[in-house]
Amino acid sequence: MRTYLDCIPCFFKQALKAARLAGANEDTQKRILDNLAAEIPNFPLSSSPPEMGGIVYRLVREITGEEDPFKEVKDEYNKIALNSYPDLKNKVIHSGDRLLAAIRLAIAGNVIDLGVDNPFDLEKEIEDVFKKDFAIFDYQEFKEALKSTKQILYLADNAGEVVFDRILIEELNKEVTYVVRDKPVINDALIEDAKFCGIDKMAKIISNGSDVPGTVLSLCSRDFLDLYEKAKLIISKGQGNFEGLAGSDNAPIFFLFKVKCPVIGNDVGCNDGDIVLKYNCK
Amino acid sequence: MRTYLDCIPCFFKQALKAARLAGANEDTQKRILDNLAAEIPNFPLSSSPPEMGGIVYRLVREITGEEDPFKEVKDEYNKIALNSYPDLKNKVIHSGDRLLAAIRLAIAGNVIDLGVDNPFDLEKEIEDVFKKDFAIFDYQEFKEALKSTKQILYLADNAGEVVFDRILIEELNKEVTYVVRDKPVINDALIEDAKFCGIDKMAKIISNGSDVPGTVLSLCSRDFLDLYEKAKLIISKGQGNFEGLAGSDNAPIFFLFKVKCPVIGNDVGCNDGDIVLKYNCK
Repeated sequence: MRTYLDCIPCFFKQALKAARLAGANEDTQKRILDNLAAEIPNFPLSSSPPEMGGIVYRLVREITGEEDPFKEVKDEYNKIALNSYPDLKNKVIHSGDRLLAAIRLAIAGNVIDLGVDNPFDLEKEIEDVFKKDFAIFDYQEFKEALKSTKQILYLADNAGEVVFDRILIEELNKEVTYVVRDKPVINDALIEDAKFCGIDKMAKIISNGSDVPGTVLSLCSRDFLDLYEKAKLIISKGQGNFEGLAGSDNAPIFFLFKVKCPVIGNDVGCNDGDIVLKYNCK
Repeated sequence: MRTYLDCIPCFFKQALKAARLAGANEDTQKRILDNLAAEIPNFPLSSSPPEMGGIVYRLVREITGEEDPFKEVKDEYNKIALNSYPDLKNKVIHSGDRLLAAIRLAIAGNVIDLGVDNPFDLEKEIEDVFKKDFAIFDYQEFKEALKSTKQILYLADNAGEVVFDRILIEELNKEVTYVVRDKPVINDALIEDAKFCGIDKMAKIISNGSDVPGTVLSLCSRDFLDLYEKAKLIISKGQGNFEGLAGSDNAPIFFLFKVKCPVIGNDVGCNDGDIVLKYNCK
């Protein structure tokens, strides 16, 4: 997905939020915004928003010297989500359609996103996602794709959310490769988060080689690209991965996310707050 | 009031909104944002937000060549408000405290503000403002100040809102000088708006000599400053005038506005959406 002009104010909001979480004082926060301002004229709108996300969080890391400003928050949400695991699992076990329930939970977990502006309430989110109709619902295609492959490439999004992904992976019953970011960026999941949430017990964990908050193929490692190019079925979680991959090729991707900003809603033809299971090749 | 870092994303939002209203295409919109980005590092946080507002709207005017991008919207709201005049007047006539009812209406009219992010519903706003308690309510001081002067300097805010000011001016029964902006900026009232809404029948209309969306004394004309310095009672409408004047001196100002952004809410010790009648010398 390209960058829209409405993303630009949001880049500044994100930078400010990250700078504050990194403990920067006001002068340092201003310096980060000034440096971001200098990047704006050079940033082509044909690039995807996570590419600027990468610049924003790199600036915050370099100027504050904080390698991982969201570390504590990530640890906290990993723990909160892991504590919910038995309840979440029960919810799936006692549902009429276990796969669909697990998909809904995976979307509910996608609300643990510190890169967007809205605060969130995880329990309420789970309740809402179970009541809500999907705005885009390529479930039939998803079930068919599942039947025809043994391997799945699963593109992770945020820490904490990983536990919700685990629930879905357990329902898929396939060989899953779980892909996280290579370096800290916002609260996106890293290898350590995936391990902490127990993904290593049921899937292979790899990094995509990049530090942007999404999957931008031109910035990913050759190892990841080899898997991506060969994949028969890719599950892409969250807005960041959608922004990086949408419209870029004909890959067999199912995008699974909650629309958390009006710009993406507009791009995908949904409203802010909608939930989506969208097949890339339809 | 100083500029807070949270104002910076908002400057970009305002620039984009104004550029679009001026009919700029996407390339021109981007050029406006790029030019704004270049101003950010040079803008001291000790300046007040309307000073940057002035820069933003000047950029939009210069780059689009549109001298008054909000002209149509201003005309529309002048007409809407003028059509409501008989009903508004009736509301005051049939209230127990006519002055207070007129103050409430003057605040309700302050919602006609295209510089802030929220959409508005004028009728609902009027209803709400009559139900709401003031978060800051220096009404006693205001009535006393009224008793001790014959002249009032009234600092206007937006087109359309002028009709609501007229209702209040009619209740004041004093010699009023009504001060508008000198050049178009957002939907702020100009001399032509004040005349269209009938202010010339009950008050002298002057401009403050500046084109920023607020009253920034260092940018105002000597003629205005002479009146300002001598004034015994100043009524200041809206956030922009508050941002420019709050804390700057010991002038006998009553700020009358609705809090329309969390940054100003924080500065004044109120919540977003609160209504305020605040005495500057308290």
